Amino acid sequence: METKIEVPILRIKGSSVEDLIDEVATELPIRLILNGEPLVTLLCTPSELEELTVGFLLSEGLLREKSSIKKIDLNEPEATVHIELSDLPRDFSKLFEKRTISSGCGQGVTFTQYRMEADRRIGVQCPLLSLDDIRQLLKTFRNLSSLYLETGGVHSAALARGQDILFFSEDIGRHNAVDKLIGKAFMKSVSMENKILLTSGRVTSEIMTKAGRNRFPILISRAAPSCMAISYAEDMGITLIGFARGERLNLYSWPKRIKLD
Amino acid sequence: METKIEVPILRIKGSSVEDLIDEVATELPIRLILNGEPLVTLLCTPSELEELTVGFLLSEGLLREKSSIKKIDLNEPEATVHIELSDLPRDFSKLFEKRTISSGCGQGVTFTQYRMEADRRIGVQCPLLSLDDIRQLLKTFRNLSSLYLETGGVHSAALARGQDILFFSEDIGRHNAVDKLIGKAFMKSVSMENKILLTSGRVTSEIMTKAGRNRFPILISRAAPSCMAISYAEDMGITLIGFARGERLNLYSWPKRIKLD
Repeated sequence: METKIEVPILRIKGSSVEDLIDEVATELPIRLILNGEPLVTLLCTPSELEELTVGFLLSEGLLREKSSIKKIDLNEPEATVHIELSDLPRDFSKLFEKRTISSGCGQGVTFTQYRMEADRRIGVQCPLLSLDDIRQLLKTFRNLSSLYLETGGVHSAALARGQDILFFSEDIGRHNAVDKLIGKAFMKSVSMENKILLTSGRVTSEIMTKAGRNRFPILISRAAPSCMAISYAEDMGITLIGFARGERLNLYSWPKRIKLD
Repeated sequence: METKIEVPILRIKGSSVEDLIDEVATELPIRLILNGEPLVTLLCTPSELEELTVGFLLSEGLLREKSSIKKIDLNEPEATVHIELSDLPRDFSKLFEKRTISSGCGQGVTFTQYRMEADRRIGVQCPLLSLDDIRQLLKTFRNLSSLYLETGGVHSAALARGQDILFFSEDIGRHNAVDKLIGKAFMKSVSMENKILLTSGRVTSEIMTKAGRNRFPILISRAAPSCMAISYAEDMGITLIGFARGERLNLYSWPKRIKLD
């Protein structure tokens, strides 16, 4: 499926009106069917849809082991991903009911998840990154964002170790980009411990919960964090960096993981 | 409730590390209770919460007439808004069930809404705005965004007529900012017909559906639209303008409402 399409537009600059073809990001509703039951419809960029499904289920706590995935099937014409899991929590349907009732912005249950994560705070061993590492990462991260550069309409997320970006994902949704990334790393059996999560988007509590649940010790964003995200980061033991652009960044929590000199 | 709080941070610029107090946007989960039943929990900036509730219910199609609002009550300590409506659609709970099941990004049912809106396409009479009007609006819109300037972490939405901004709202969530605005105009009995909706955020299908349901003929965004938003705009008869910054803008649909010379 195409992640961008061409549309005719009028581009206006000052008093010049130009008739041209521009690229815009595709947006598609994708239905996830879990063990035969419709679970959720995600509005997303139609790429890496199996990864999105896996990442979404990981972030929602419905999937823990790779071996639980019995089947995953993308039906393109129907815009549907069918996934079959063994070991679904027994109270799964109930849990999910609660989750979606308190949705709209997808919240409520993320609370529970958060409390669970805060109980197993990530330990700080020693500095994992230097300021130079971070600047190098940001540069690579920006260069990788091809769909953004073409359409201006998507978010990016990356998983890094040291100065190296191991995985990269893009989506029209901030949450989806992170879920695609998490799904991709999980499918490749790459652990997220001691890795870095980069995001182009604002860090709200939901993004922070995804980071904690998947055990990322460091989260770096080009944008702003919310107060709730900062307090989650404190509690879960995650180093939170915001407004990371060029030479500048703000460090909100657990600075010991960053070598400052 | 405070919309921003002060937090201690380390600000790093080049090799200088500064210990200071910075302002970040507050984020709070607010529970909406409709006729005694928990409806949804919205993660939002804790301001204009009655307006957010009303706007959310308008956007979801659960509220149509101001006279239906029997009571609206904000309970600050509990972070809850209780609203009582008469004339709830008989199939309301069913509708909403369907809605939340297909949520996560709040989609699925917005489809139905969209089809409904497309059936009553907004007619184009004559130009409503000149390019100068748009530039003036964008300037005022930007100046009004105080919370954004302080925290860098929120979205803005405004309702305008000609060069005048009549209402303005901010929220950590793109959708909430629009809902607050719509709720505010509705509470003041200001019709949205022949008005302009401005948003700082990307225009996805959900934002476009909110615009259509509330009969805005023109939507102007500082950011990118998705392909689905463009096709909704075409079908619903809405003039969609994206990337509106400074002297530049892109016109995606129904250009006749804009005086181009």
